[in-house]
Amino acid sequence: MSRPVLIVGSGPAGLAAAHALASIGQRSVLVEKEQRLGGAPIISGYAKLVPSGEWARDAIGGMVRRVESNSLVAIHRGTTVKEFGGAPGAFNVRLSNGQALEAGAALLCTGFTHFDSVNKPEWGFGTFPDVVTTTQVEQMISTGKGVRCPSDGRKPERVAILLCVGSRDRQIGREWCSKICCTVSCNIAMEIREELPDCHVYIYYMDIRTYGHNETYYWRSQEEFKVKYIKARIAEVTSDGKKLIVKGEDTLVKRPITIPFDMVVHAIGMDPNLDNKSLAATFGIALEPHGNIAKGSAYGALGETSRAGVLVAGAATGPETIDDSIAQAKAAALAAFALANPAPTEVAAA
Amino acid sequence: MSRPVLIVGSGPAGLAAAHALASIGQRSVLVEKEQRLGGAPIISGYAKLVPSGEWARDAIGGMVRRVESNSLVAIHRGTTVKEFGGAPGAFNVRLSNGQALEAGAALLCTGFTHFDSVNKPEWGFGTFPDVVTTTQVEQMISTGKGVRCPSDGRKPERVAILLCVGSRDRQIGREWCSKICCTVSCNIAMEIREELPDCHVYIYYMDIRTYGHNETYYWRSQEEFKVKYIKARIAEVTSDGKKLIVKGEDTLVKRPITIPFDMVVHAIGMDPNLDNKSLAATFGIALEPHGNIAKGSAYGALGETSRAGVLVAGAATGPETIDDSIAQAKAAALAAFALANPAPTEVAAA
Repeated sequence: MSRPVLIVGSGPAGLAAAHALASIGQRSVLVEKEQRLGGAPIISGYAKLVPSGEWARDAIGGMVRRVESNSLVAIHRGTTVKEFGGAPGAFNVRLSNGQALEAGAALLCTGFTHFDSVNKPEWGFGTFPDVVTTTQVEQMISTGKGVRCPSDGRKPERVAILLCVGSRDRQIGREWCSKICCTVSCNIAMEIREELPDCHVYIYYMDIRTYGHNETYYWRSQEEFKVKYIKARIAEVTSDGKKLIVKGEDTLVKRPITIPFDMVVHAIGMDPNLDNKSLAATFGIALEPHGNIAKGSAYGALGETSRAGVLVAGAATGPETIDDSIAQAKAAALAAFALANPAPTEVAAA
Repeated sequence: MSRPVLIVGSGPAGLAAAHALASIGQRSVLVEKEQRLGGAPIISGYAKLVPSGEWARDAIGGMVRRVESNSLVAIHRGTTVKEFGGAPGAFNVRLSNGQALEAGAALLCTGFTHFDSVNKPEWGFGTFPDVVTTTQVEQMISTGKGVRCPSDGRKPERVAILLCVGSRDRQIGREWCSKICCTVSCNIAMEIREELPDCHVYIYYMDIRTYGHNETYYWRSQEEFKVKYIKARIAEVTSDGKKLIVKGEDTLVKRPITIPFDMVVHAIGMDPNLDNKSLAATFGIALEPHGNIAKGSAYGALGETSRAGVLVAGAATGPETIDDSIAQAKAAALAAFALANPAPTEVAAA
């Protein structure tokens, strides 16, 4: 019997990998630092996912349940990897709960950290209670409480969504595009308009990056839901005591614009996981300059890190969609399976 | 011994699937309608790929060679699938070369068709010889001939690259974003500037969608290579007898602009594969409204079509990058392996 595959992280990528391996009879050990499985969509309480439109608790919750009920997946919650040594096919692993195990390969599905909006103080988060993040709005929707101003619980009549908060912003050392925020924001804007049909929703953008078939989100939000788009550089978010004031420059007409809102939503980006340095030390792998886990090109064995037998998938390598994270995880799972089960045919087939 | 997996199409996705299956000892039958393996990057002669920067002939060529030398992959060139029947685990397949075979599962990696720029006649392709496509410029670079005006072979002094040709354009029934053209165009612009340092290169755009870490292409093209970006709606491409004339509206300053160029490059999008209707008929699968192969959500078995046991990966489902196509193909290969090798554990593990 081959050694199990060690999977670190139980977000969409880790869940997909564990299930995929089980579907071909391969055991895995799934190590999750939180007490619950599901990663960001579950822990942070996402609402409807793009592009499927399914609720996170159904879509990712379903992935959790099929892994939890699978006898080929050994699950360790509230646990981290403390020591990792050995070689591909026979790694030695010690967990924070004291358990030791052998693994044929390791697959890091350790995801990202949401950008913390307090690092963009001029845009009002942390100063004004009605400046919130996309994650907070997702929680308002997914809990069924509805979109309300945190300061007094009222229904907002005017909402601004600011794109690229913590993305494409060299001032704060984050030049990357976080990939998902445009489509997520189109989706949230439509959900707000659906719950509060009298609420005006504006999206402040640099470029609209609803990618591939997600382009339909952009059209639909304008035509069916009357969401308004303003191409702008935002200077600051202040308050006049009653309303939040968004000041900036409309870059299409080259004029300063100052508009009052009840609620301002930061479309926060994806930062490298804060754990990446300790993961890199434990697993002996390299990070790329931004602090994500460095990966090889896609043309070889997809998901290779700098250490043989240690693979990586999903947002651990940089901003990634859920769908692409799942695909990468299953692809890496196949590579992990090959490492854990060196086939007699492999020499001839190399 | 399990039945082989039928793979249709030998672009990056099909090649990745065949190699991944071989790496775990699984036989496959790879059916390619062209006489050469490699798909669009090889057949159309792409130059350097994004984001790896590797030459297509090295990166994808390497994927071709490792499949061609693999005894677990049976290759049929210049061949199509004529008949497909049966059920998952035991499909019956007849090829255009007369061969019959059984397959445990089928994986369609049939890719896309480049947008044909003659469908956008007001932008000059087909009328003026120096209006070319990104694919033609890739060929100029990859063959080593260099970027030259087709009309007289001269080195262009001024080049315009027009983004979104055949994408995000409802007038011609193509509302989708083709995902790759922005980054590919940044890359081509830098390659032109590298070969011809005195040539001015302009990119006409609606939004710049260099996605994720590809954002660096956008900054680098401006800062290091001095590529100029114009946010514009293009009206027409004409000629004054000596130069090509690009007319449009600069949407940042709301003014008409008319600029002369030596060469105009259409950044062409990805159309649904022209073969999709016949593929759908042969395999008994559904297409989505645009004409791509319809796929299920990512949360189940990734790459499912409307028919059990027939999987799909890559640009056959809509615009897709090479890297994501490869990941999807390997993920689907794992699902195909599970179909071809139903494990005794699977009932317990379902």
